[in-house]
Amino acid sequence: MRDPLSRPLAVSLGDPAGIGPEVVAKCWDNRDRFGLHPFVAIGDIRALRAVWDGPITTIDDPREAETAFDVGLPLLQIHSPQEDRPGHPSVAGAHCSLDALEIAVGLARSGSAAAVVTGPVSKEQLYSIGFNHPGQTEFVAERCGIAAGNVVMMLAGESLRTVPVTTHIPLRDVPDMLTARLIESRGRTTLRGLQRNFGIAEPRLAVTGLNPHAGEGGMLGRAEIEVIEPAIAALRADGWRVTGPHPADTLFHETARARYDAALCMYHDQALIPVKALHFADAVNITLGLPIVRTAPDHGTAFDIAGQDRADPRPMASALRLAAFCATQRAAAATAAA
Amino acid sequence: MRDPLSRPLAVSLGDPAGIGPEVVAKCWDNRDRFGLHPFVAIGDIRALRAVWDGPITTIDDPREAETAFDVGLPLLQIHSPQEDRPGHPSVAGAHCSLDALEIAVGLARSGSAAAVVTGPVSKEQLYSIGFNHPGQTEFVAERCGIAAGNVVMMLAGESLRTVPVTTHIPLRDVPDMLTARLIESRGRTTLRGLQRNFGIAEPRLAVTGLNPHAGEGGMLGRAEIEVIEPAIAALRADGWRVTGPHPADTLFHETARARYDAALCMYHDQALIPVKALHFADAVNITLGLPIVRTAPDHGTAFDIAGQDRADPRPMASALRLAAFCATQRAAAATAAA
Repeated sequence: MRDPLSRPLAVSLGDPAGIGPEVVAKCWDNRDRFGLHPFVAIGDIRALRAVWDGPITTIDDPREAETAFDVGLPLLQIHSPQEDRPGHPSVAGAHCSLDALEIAVGLARSGSAAAVVTGPVSKEQLYSIGFNHPGQTEFVAERCGIAAGNVVMMLAGESLRTVPVTTHIPLRDVPDMLTARLIESRGRTTLRGLQRNFGIAEPRLAVTGLNPHAGEGGMLGRAEIEVIEPAIAALRADGWRVTGPHPADTLFHETARARYDAALCMYHDQALIPVKALHFADAVNITLGLPIVRTAPDHGTAFDIAGQDRADPRPMASALRLAAFCATQRAAAATAAA
Repeated sequence: MRDPLSRPLAVSLGDPAGIGPEVVAKCWDNRDRFGLHPFVAIGDIRALRAVWDGPITTIDDPREAETAFDVGLPLLQIHSPQEDRPGHPSVAGAHCSLDALEIAVGLARSGSAAAVVTGPVSKEQLYSIGFNHPGQTEFVAERCGIAAGNVVMMLAGESLRTVPVTTHIPLRDVPDMLTARLIESRGRTTLRGLQRNFGIAEPRLAVTGLNPHAGEGGMLGRAEIEVIEPAIAALRADGWRVTGPHPADTLFHETARARYDAALCMYHDQALIPVKALHFADAVNITLGLPIVRTAPDHGTAFDIAGQDRADPRPMASALRLAAFCATQRAAAATAAA
């Protein structure tokens, strides 16, 4: 097994009219300061040129990336039929962003890249070209031969990692969507993901309640008793270190955070509010349950500020760093097992 | 109008078997370091003696408190028929905690105290003696002649203040409880409370969405369009500075927090998770909409650690400081209006 650090990370630029090209270019500019492992960008050179005049080295093979990285931003070029202006997305740009994603995943699947980092895409544009996945996560899962329901989204900041059991559904639908089976499944994927990607041999999972005060013994709702506790019991029966259900409002202060490696939360905002309150600039979206490492900065295309040199590259830098870290953990485990 | 600083704060000790007496005593011990205005404690001297051997000055009139405060903890004594041991609550203790609360509110209502700070009580014990309010907040409201539905609970930390529109109800019931009228009413009470208690002439209120991404234009729920936006429009029509509905997960980082004076949130955890993640040790519960100032530390009786000298007095100290601050703001406004 090759050391993952002998392979570059594959970074899709995302929508050419969004801030993806700008933040990737700024990461290359600041590669030493940010402590970044070599990466190869995948996208249209014109999207980079529209926002950046630094050196670009177009390459044909990812193996050239490491050497090229010292002198310019290595790029696997995708020729879009149309040049997009920053802030003005198009159908052609959506095709380009999808091609870049597909190639990046392929490079990681084949072992040519150590991990995939995905730039932000426009779901609206993608839907217009027939893309029928809720987001990039599900697309990546499918390309890896994993059912979308079997991967989980983790939001990882320096001092807190959370996973939402349910994601992009109306809050009204959350209580009925929650089943012991779903919580157990998400918990299991999270625990294995902590082992595999973060190198934590015996991960500790804290599970939140759904209701205020975790239901206060059934007075403020019964989901904790009927759904969440059985899921926790099932995970514990398999030997996993799992606690809860915890009242969510007292689970995210410093002392509490030291007691677990990830918090499994019942819905989108319960998971994302604390991580983004504490780690807005450096929270990374990582998909667990995949055969490859995939991370992404937790922001969108930000068309409204694209092309104005205002985009903050720190979330992309964090995504690149975490991807390299996780790829290293996986390789070390594979070497140890060999 | 007397300067509020010529009157003490009235602090009820809460349940005598809880950590209330300990944190109040520790606040007196650290009165200079914590920068505390003179206060008078109200409760049973034996509850203090069980956990503290510092000087206590029993007084009969709050006017004696300021002078007494320099030499001992001023106490308005309530004779409980029974002595409780820390960690072992009783019916007698519940009566004692309720008497203390009643007296503290009376002192503030009459102007003998500048504000009320309430120590933690045991709802379970109070219910057993026929107390039929959801909590101390509603009891204080009633004693002030205000309908419980017309006061709001604010959680205030150094860099973030939030108010939940709905509070202690199952999450499942939240969507149906939310009406434009309720949100508007809570918003108005919050805005007036920011003026009156915090001295902010033109307060800025940020309103959250209910659903992930604030409903994403209706794709992830319609509460934002049908309920929250009309409430915001009604408040704006009256000249208030109100923004939203904002996606809750991106509303609580440092840059976002600088744009508003309080966030109006749709449910308990949405409001409490960010404040407690950021300000666990110093978040203060303050009731808005009352004729008096009332604050409380945002923790419970903690019977499990009572009597072990382990209770952290900082939340009580923060509640005392905020009470003095708000009383000063109100007095200044009253003086200016006179």
